[in-house]
Amino acid sequence: RVFTERENVRGCPRTYRIGSSALSGISGVAHDKMTDKAVFTRDKVLTIHTMNPTVKKVEYAVRGPIVQRAVQIEKELKEGVKKPFTEVIKANIGDAHAMGQQPITFFRQVLALCSYPELLKDNMFPEDAKNRARRILQACGGSSIGAYSASQGIECVRQDVARYIECRDGGVPCDPDNIYLTTGASDGIVTMLKLLVCGEGPTRTGVMISIPQYPLYSAALAELAAVQVNYYLNEDKCWSMDVSELERSLSEARKYCNPKALCPNLCSCQVYQDNVYAEGCQFHSFKKVLFEMGPQYSNTVELASFHSTSKCYMGECGFRGGYMEVINMDPEVKAQLTKLVSVRLCPPVPGQALMDLVVNSPKPGEPSYNNFMKERTATLSLLAEKAKLTKEILNTVPGITCNPVQGAMYSFPKISLPEKAIKEAKALGQAPDMFYCMKMLEETGICLVPGSGFGQKEGTYHFRMTILPPTDKLKILLAKVKEFHQKFTKQYS
Amino acid sequence: RVFTERENVRGCPRTYRIGSSALSGISGVAHDKMTDKAVFTRDKVLTIHTMNPTVKKVEYAVRGPIVQRAVQIEKELKEGVKKPFTEVIKANIGDAHAMGQQPITFFRQVLALCSYPELLKDNMFPEDAKNRARRILQACGGSSIGAYSASQGIECVRQDVARYIECRDGGVPCDPDNIYLTTGASDGIVTMLKLLVCGEGPTRTGVMISIPQYPLYSAALAELAAVQVNYYLNEDKCWSMDVSELERSLSEARKYCNPKALCPNLCSCQVYQDNVYAEGCQFHSFKKVLFEMGPQYSNTVELASFHSTSKCYMGECGFRGGYMEVINMDPEVKAQLTKLVSVRLCPPVPGQALMDLVVNSPKPGEPSYNNFMKERTATLSLLAEKAKLTKEILNTVPGITCNPVQGAMYSFPKISLPEKAIKEAKALGQAPDMFYCMKMLEETGICLVPGSGFGQKEGTYHFRMTILPPTDKLKILLAKVKEFHQKFTKQYS
Repeated sequence: RVFTERENVRGCPRTYRIGSSALSGISGVAHDKMTDKAVFTRDKVLTIHTMNPTVKKVEYAVRGPIVQRAVQIEKELKEGVKKPFTEVIKANIGDAHAMGQQPITFFRQVLALCSYPELLKDNMFPEDAKNRARRILQACGGSSIGAYSASQGIECVRQDVARYIECRDGGVPCDPDNIYLTTGASDGIVTMLKLLVCGEGPTRTGVMISIPQYPLYSAALAELAAVQVNYYLNEDKCWSMDVSELERSLSEARKYCNPKALCPNLCSCQVYQDNVYAEGCQFHSFKKVLFEMGPQYSNTVELASFHSTSKCYMGECGFRGGYMEVINMDPEVKAQLTKLVSVRLCPPVPGQALMDLVVNSPKPGEPSYNNFMKERTATLSLLAEKAKLTKEILNTVPGITCNPVQGAMYSFPKISLPEKAIKEAKALGQAPDMFYCMKMLEETGICLVPGSGFGQKEGTYHFRMTILPPTDKLKILLAKVKEFHQKFTKQYS
Repeated sequence: RVFTERENVRGCPRTYRIGSSALSGISGVAHDKMTDKAVFTRDKVLTIHTMNPTVKKVEYAVRGPIVQRAVQIEKELKEGVKKPFTEVIKANIGDAHAMGQQPITFFRQVLALCSYPELLKDNMFPEDAKNRARRILQACGGSSIGAYSASQGIECVRQDVARYIECRDGGVPCDPDNIYLTTGASDGIVTMLKLLVCGEGPTRTGVMISIPQYPLYSAALAELAAVQVNYYLNEDKCWSMDVSELERSLSEARKYCNPKALCPNLCSCQVYQDNVYAEGCQFHSFKKVLFEMGPQYSNTVELASFHSTSKCYMGECGFRGGYMEVINMDPEVKAQLTKLVSVRLCPPVPGQALMDLVVNSPKPGEPSYNNFMKERTATLSLLAEKAKLTKEILNTVPGITCNPVQGAMYSFPKISLPEKAIKEAKALGQAPDMFYCMKMLEETGICLVPGSGFGQKEGTYHFRMTILPPTDKLKILLAKVKEFHQKFTKQYS
């Protein structure tokens, strides 16, 4: 019989013996007066003191204590606990469908066809949806999305991704062998960082990240025990990047670590490439820019770019689909990358299928084209409208200043907090903006993320709020934020 | 504008400046006579010498060089290259659907309904499938499987998992808060190992794994720079576990590391719990056994158990669904675990839905029950038949000895190799069984995994072969293996 994949058929008698030998280690027997039973105690193998110390350093604000409290409050409301509000509004995370955004019909039709190919016989589906499904299924082992794919991802999907990138970047070439399908963008980013990290003390790998940052970076760097090197975006210039600040950060970092990567750059995330709302703004991929800068950059700069199915007009977070493109990567390192991703076998195949549909969406003339474009445009213009609304209303509040939301799905307004509130927060050992957001949650049911979870200039305070709630709900939310901020300011002045 | 999630709207002009400052570093300019162009060279940031050394140590035989070569050969065949065979038969990995196993109709119906809820209006689906889909959708944000779930997994799915475990283990209680949904079993196993690792030198965490092992363990331990502690299963006793060997391994390990976990035990994988074929054999979960051993074990031994949608009668590898149950885990550590899994946001929601269907399959009286049972039984009895067939035919080959395949999907026969072959392999710097399997692939198109990829007693050689190919193809495969082995033995004697 084969044990190589560790099931424990007939493990029973053996386990008894293991239990009574290698694994025992009872450190004491107490007596429980209530139950009149012996209570056995044993030193745990795994405690907060013996566990992996790098894991302890990990923090992830987007799903941190404030969100856990929000979930509790929802339960309390269900149980009928009286609150000054009737529902929790979650504006903490870019989870579009949870906020009522509708999925793209075409994508879901193809996914249903891939899940249950019997439906290919059904007349209710348009031909282009059926063709996409057939093509994906033919590329799957046994024509089933239940089979493992190649670890790098289904080949025809990687080819579609490459064609999509070439077209998006105005013809800059893209090699399907440089495409790795991933479990959302996060998976690709963590994998790239993992490759980079080495050295000890002053030679330890440093990674430069913008502040405010997305907490995945700080979390991954903490877990990898890499050095997080901060550079600050310029809030007064609409969160733009100053090269002088980059150079300051870099030269300081060189004193205590070995800065190797710049995020976004060696890691460039493009998950919001369709979420550009501001007049005169458009998306430029770093890869395209490198090619415009000439061969001394496009042939030499090592760049990894990431995209996913979770944002833009799709908002399909639950499928955990994504891809990564690497250029100018050393072939030996690329072989190591391919080996590394093979350990997790393959990204979820439904997510790979969805990623394929995103890069190979309905074309003019295909039966689903008009409806696809209608849905896509409606979603993006609604987001643009909510981006504008958020900035306008927040800026009417004394003590809140909000930059225009030019892209993505979030506002990151600066809030001025009274000294008294800051003192009280510090007395509680809380970051002042955490104290502020926690109070807002308890009093209004609105769940925001404190700026401290993303990083901010010393002495400044912010919160992050998504623009995703439905317009009517967003208006209520913004009105409540306004009311709360005024009340809070008054209370602590 | 908000940079917190790192898209690079309007990044273009800034990037030019970054490019010309922080990021430049051209180390030389050469001249390409062919193109009459200047070729810029630049020292790579990321090379085999500067990359993460622990990643270099990772090996994963199930998708190693032999499988990569198999993929090449398939391409060559497509391109019309003449070979002594017309197709590659992959018996290297437990990928049931790729080998023609059909998905369970009920599961795929519910997944289609969840993907495209419009189908709930369709009469072609049975009511119980529709009810399962409605229940899952109601538990999703915005009633969409495209929304993120809680990081620990959808609550009602975790409740179903807990009920399933209680029923499977004859009433031993299971708390849904101890259930974590995962991206396949691998994800859960790696996460648990990650929690465990700490210390340096002789205090470095050691993890005891059975040899032969599943290469995920050695790969994960290498990446975590933990110490792999081997204990050998007894091939002569049908790969059973000898406690004396466990104790030998443990006491030796204590000299050079801090052995903390026993796999399977603190990590107990149960992905084959339905794949038990041998007379008088049945599946016993370690948790149930601990309870039978009494409170001094069931209240103290820290145990993590894993299951997935990939094996058993489902074979749905591509969905990457799974769960982990932890018992007796220190509450502080559990909080750290919950925090850690929140960084990857959530497991793929379609995989969570599928896991729910596995633990909450059709009940007697429900419309889909009979067909579900028919499909389930057919798949499992076919596997049992192929397990028997594999053992019987392999044992007719002089120089091959194969234990009964009592469970799972694999045989791990011992092969005797001629001295001359062993010498030639070593001259090529190859493991002798790698040399053997590579030759078999080139000559027969059969893709097996060398025993050295799983570990084996010094001086013994094996290969791992799945029992998954369709019966007719399996017979051809076994005949070819027989023929090859005889030819190989002759050639090198």
